[in-house]
Amino acid sequence: MNIALSFQARILDGPGERTPFPATVPGNVQKDYAAAFGFKDPFFADNYRQFEAIEDSTFEYFAPVDVMPEPGEEIWFVSGGIDYSYSVCLDDRVLYRYEGMYRPVELNLTPYLNGHNLLRIVILPHPKRPDAPQGREQADHSAKPPVCYGWDWNPRLLISGLWEECRLERRTAGTITRVCPSYTLNGDRTEARVRFDVECRSEVTLTLTDREGNVVYEGKDKEFVLKNPHLWWCNGQGDAYLYTYTVRSGEDSRCGQIGFRTVRLLRNRPESPLFPKGRYDAPITIELNGRPIPAKGSNFVNPELFWGDDSESVYEPLVRLAYEAHMNVFRMWGGAGLRKDSFYSLCDRYGIMIWQEFMLACNNYPGTPEYLAVLEKEAHACLDRLLPHPCLTLLCGGNELFNSWSGMDDQSLPLRLLDKICFERAPQIPFNKTSPMTGMAHGCYLFYEPDYMGGDVWEMFQKASNTAYTEFGVPSMADADILRSIIPEEELFPPKPTRSYLAHHGFEAWGPTRWICPEIIERYFGKPDNLEQMVDESQLLQAEGYKGAFEEMRRQWPVCSFMTNWDYNEPWPCAANNSLLSYPARPKPAYTAVRDALRPSLFSAKIPRFGWEAGQTLTFEIWLLNDSPLPACGKVTAYLLSDGVRTELAVWEARTEPCRNEKGPEVSFVVPKGREKTFSLELQADNGMQSCYRLCRFRP
Amino acid sequence: MNIALSFQARILDGPGERTPFPATVPGNVQKDYAAAFGFKDPFFADNYRQFEAIEDSTFEYFAPVDVMPEPGEEIWFVSGGIDYSYSVCLDDRVLYRYEGMYRPVELNLTPYLNGHNLLRIVILPHPKRPDAPQGREQADHSAKPPVCYGWDWNPRLLISGLWEECRLERRTAGTITRVCPSYTLNGDRTEARVRFDVECRSEVTLTLTDREGNVVYEGKDKEFVLKNPHLWWCNGQGDAYLYTYTVRSGEDSRCGQIGFRTVRLLRNRPESPLFPKGRYDAPITIELNGRPIPAKGSNFVNPELFWGDDSESVYEPLVRLAYEAHMNVFRMWGGAGLRKDSFYSLCDRYGIMIWQEFMLACNNYPGTPEYLAVLEKEAHACLDRLLPHPCLTLLCGGNELFNSWSGMDDQSLPLRLLDKICFERAPQIPFNKTSPMTGMAHGCYLFYEPDYMGGDVWEMFQKASNTAYTEFGVPSMADADILRSIIPEEELFPPKPTRSYLAHHGFEAWGPTRWICPEIIERYFGKPDNLEQMVDESQLLQAEGYKGAFEEMRRQWPVCSFMTNWDYNEPWPCAANNSLLSYPARPKPAYTAVRDALRPSLFSAKIPRFGWEAGQTLTFEIWLLNDSPLPACGKVTAYLLSDGVRTELAVWEARTEPCRNEKGPEVSFVVPKGREKTFSLELQADNGMQSCYRLCRFRP
Repeated sequence: MNIALSFQARILDGPGERTPFPATVPGNVQKDYAAAFGFKDPFFADNYRQFEAIEDSTFEYFAPVDVMPEPGEEIWFVSGGIDYSYSVCLDDRVLYRYEGMYRPVELNLTPYLNGHNLLRIVILPHPKRPDAPQGREQADHSAKPPVCYGWDWNPRLLISGLWEECRLERRTAGTITRVCPSYTLNGDRTEARVRFDVECRSEVTLTLTDREGNVVYEGKDKEFVLKNPHLWWCNGQGDAYLYTYTVRSGEDSRCGQIGFRTVRLLRNRPESPLFPKGRYDAPITIELNGRPIPAKGSNFVNPELFWGDDSESVYEPLVRLAYEAHMNVFRMWGGAGLRKDSFYSLCDRYGIMIWQEFMLACNNYPGTPEYLAVLEKEAHACLDRLLPHPCLTLLCGGNELFNSWSGMDDQSLPLRLLDKICFERAPQIPFNKTSPMTGMAHGCYLFYEPDYMGGDVWEMFQKASNTAYTEFGVPSMADADILRSIIPEEELFPPKPTRSYLAHHGFEAWGPTRWICPEIIERYFGKPDNLEQMVDESQLLQAEGYKGAFEEMRRQWPVCSFMTNWDYNEPWPCAANNSLLSYPARPKPAYTAVRDALRPSLFSAKIPRFGWEAGQTLTFEIWLLNDSPLPACGKVTAYLLSDGVRTELAVWEARTEPCRNEKGPEVSFVVPKGREKTFSLELQADNGMQSCYRLCRFRP
Repeated sequence: MNIALSFQARILDGPGERTPFPATVPGNVQKDYAAAFGFKDPFFADNYRQFEAIEDSTFEYFAPVDVMPEPGEEIWFVSGGIDYSYSVCLDDRVLYRYEGMYRPVELNLTPYLNGHNLLRIVILPHPKRPDAPQGREQADHSAKPPVCYGWDWNPRLLISGLWEECRLERRTAGTITRVCPSYTLNGDRTEARVRFDVECRSEVTLTLTDREGNVVYEGKDKEFVLKNPHLWWCNGQGDAYLYTYTVRSGEDSRCGQIGFRTVRLLRNRPESPLFPKGRYDAPITIELNGRPIPAKGSNFVNPELFWGDDSESVYEPLVRLAYEAHMNVFRMWGGAGLRKDSFYSLCDRYGIMIWQEFMLACNNYPGTPEYLAVLEKEAHACLDRLLPHPCLTLLCGGNELFNSWSGMDDQSLPLRLLDKICFERAPQIPFNKTSPMTGMAHGCYLFYEPDYMGGDVWEMFQKASNTAYTEFGVPSMADADILRSIIPEEELFPPKPTRSYLAHHGFEAWGPTRWICPEIIERYFGKPDNLEQMVDESQLLQAEGYKGAFEEMRRQWPVCSFMTNWDYNEPWPCAANNSLLSYPARPKPAYTAVRDALRPSLFSAKIPRFGWEAGQTLTFEIWLLNDSPLPACGKVTAYLLSDGVRTELAVWEARTEPCRNEKGPEVSFVVPKGREKTFSLELQADNGMQSCYRLCRFRP
């Protein structure tokens, strides 16, 4: 039986007001402080900088505890996790100290209760390596997800506190304190050996029911065999079938869901035949229940600046929109660590596979015994959270750790430790030390970047031949109304690296002009006349860029088997960002374009580049893309649409096998002169497989 | 106190004579059987095939045990290891069963002794996966090193038995049964914290003396600090300094050597700057005691067909010749597993760093619980053997496991298990799952191979840009007298794929003509007139090929930091092989060429290719190569030597820093007509840094 706690908080030490203030739990103490002491809206202009003043303060949460146990009862303090370095005290007695936000806390208060105790949770200042410059490197000796130290889409806004639920529990011999289901499937997946690890001092009964409510097991054995289980499939490949379990003692019960699936990583291609000869690429094709699957989705980041605000209602629209966009995978980028449990339950239900990274990103984490001890505990806490979820498909040490800005490598002890722990705890789940691994790639992050393999993003991916594009991005500006809500009127147009645009990552997020990149918009469309036009053109580039990139990656199947753009969402309204959704969950035009590009079956045009001059010959290829488990067929007619005139270019009737693409005809035409800045290629088809591409006509 | 055992052996089950026969221990039971039953010399022709008849036999060693313990004594059976699946019995009592050749056996016989016991060791048939074709794949569910199942330089000759010493030991409370030293060095290597793990029921005294005999520690503490230890350096970089320890109880003592050093792997170069962007290469530059070192050496394979014959006297000339050839590293190729302890002690003394692979090679070892259990025990046994040796520099899962003929990858559970065990036992020693890793390369293995990056081996490595060439080879025929001793007269010349040449890997070892490759000899020199001429020309190609390859790899420092040719030695007289030494330890001309190419400081010519036509312009570069920890300088004069006429081409006076190369002038000349098939480029220098290259003149 749970007893709610009523928390207040105060600053114990360091800068800031000392007066106690009300605390929301789950929440973040910085947000509570801001509310109490009248901080201005942190989303507007550069108001988030107000939080810098309390970065190095020590906070204390406190709550009166006036309950006493009944006979046969114990009273426990239970928390899902506390961010980040803290101690839990009852009155002046320190009961527990820990470093790390993911490990639950369970403390028996019974021996110390006197009817008028005070529970106190002291939150130490955010970890900062003393000699590190301001930024993510301050977190490089800790297991704190580094994103809140400042990233190119997350302001520097350091948070901590009771980010998960906290309560008291009355516990008796019948209280169930832990239920952890697991299973192994036999070779042909016709039998699941199910095991429940249950902590309860009384005898318990287990019930397993299928989706239709039929009881498929009931009994007291904590290990049993389920014959011919329905399998859990990702979105687009089958049902995300979940069974419901209930564990009952006399007085208590716990229930949850379990899904049965096997996952492996397969290799994408053999090594080069040339001598001197290296190795083949690291395997990255997901095999789910024995079926190789093209993984298509996006990079999911923290959906809130204040992670205490994370909740099922925050997550639900985000996961649902991914489902509706035919995505089957999220890469959970390491810089933002893990989300709360309800997120993974939603992914279980919607069939979104999860690539989960540990909380290491873009830093060189040390191999010292002190750091390894912190990391080991938090890694176990992370696995405790993740392993029950069928959506968990891939574990990964962290983001871009084998790149020059990080400096870790295959020999780094933190990554060897994580590999070891994952091997011991979950050998059935693939593990990579980082992304990208050999054969995979990150970037580019612009629509047009001639210094790399570019030109434009279409050209770049047509030239590239990687096994997985686990990050790639095209930025756009936010909708004009969002911009008006975060940028003062006098700074709005034309966007320049002013205080508020800088704060919202419009400029200097990466190099001088990212993420607005006005020079790229201007390259294609000339100088915009007003904000609305600039936003439209920026969003057109993003939408067409992502469409061409995703479709090209799908064309490269099975050499390429993984595509997750950078990124899906954002934790606050960015002035410009690579995300498909604006905060909190508003689709940009790019979302719709990606949703179309990820349909299981569609006709797609492979167009050499986005920008053309009248009189140039444009030759494109028509493809039938199909990653569904069914054959696909259809008839397509290609049209040119220019200044309102539609010209038929070609007709193709095509058919392809399950999860196979088919290359169709090459079609050429001369780009006509025209008034409009854009012209379109339309692939009209008879069964929802149509596509449309807007292209730029230089100097119309 | 040791008591010798006198063994006989017999076939218990399966094909073969049942009569008992004398057994040599250490040894191999197949060799004993051959001696007893009159097998013909296995080195001659294809006589080794006689052993096929007893492949599937079960053998038993047996020895009378008539000793009884004195009061206070126990009598133990002790073995260094038994090959491969076996049980140890006293009379009819099974005392122990094990699978794996590296784990020592220690069994207390005392309770069962009656003064007339019989010790019996039953050796089960060689492991063979039932559905595997004949060859190495038969070993792919075992921890048996697969080479004896047949390789392109090792005949199929399956061995087993008491390959390490076996004896009885009288043990008392004062007997020391285990001494395992270890240490950690502080950051600047000025303090070694030394620990001894000692098993003895009585108190022991430790003594540590330096090389000059001075006692630097004496006492009863098993952990102590040594200030300013002399460090162990590899050959060419400093002294291979070893301290001697002695552990004494009242009645017993054990001594050994300990060397202090730190080792890390550094990265060779940053990742490509291009987007889409991958990772950087796996680190492979050895940093010894804080100093990055070019690793130069060779691949060491089993020096005998019968591994029971391995001994210090077998190893010593091989290790000494490597030392004299300026080598500082051996890659211990996984297919041949580990050598006996005396090998590693020799490498400790001669300063040869060891890259040791576990016993996995070119197979797809499974992730089944049964296999992982066998591998785990044997991996621990291997580490017990290796970790005390300062020569141990790199641990590796096995050979070419990330290539298409193996089929394992980053996710393979046996390799994740080995990484985990090495991380737990020896985090200070780098670990790679296999060779080649990303950036590294194996091959080519011919002098001339236009289908790859070739033409010839000089061209190939001038075009390549890998971080490590952990295998590359050029074959040659054995000396004519060796050939006469293994090939019947009637088959000798011209070599053809006859019975004896096939048996000795002259043909069809790999493709139709390897390793003799007469078409390559003929390409440069025409059809040879006799065996001696053919051998000379073959050995010239090997010597010049290796010289050009090793020198080119050294030129590519620090991008390339590792070069070990395939291979160093051979376990029997091959008709042709890539080895530098013929069995047992006879240098080929290539040995001398490599010895010269590996001098710490030398002048080197970068010559585009080996074969020229008269009238062509040959442009070469002069380099000063230096990998010593000292600067190098000298004056060099380049000469052309053709038909006995020496022409001066250039003079260069050069100087370079420690471990830095210096590029000198480009020099051109027109290849003159001449009578002789070869002409030479000589780099004459004043201080032992001269070099000479023989080149082919096509159609003289």
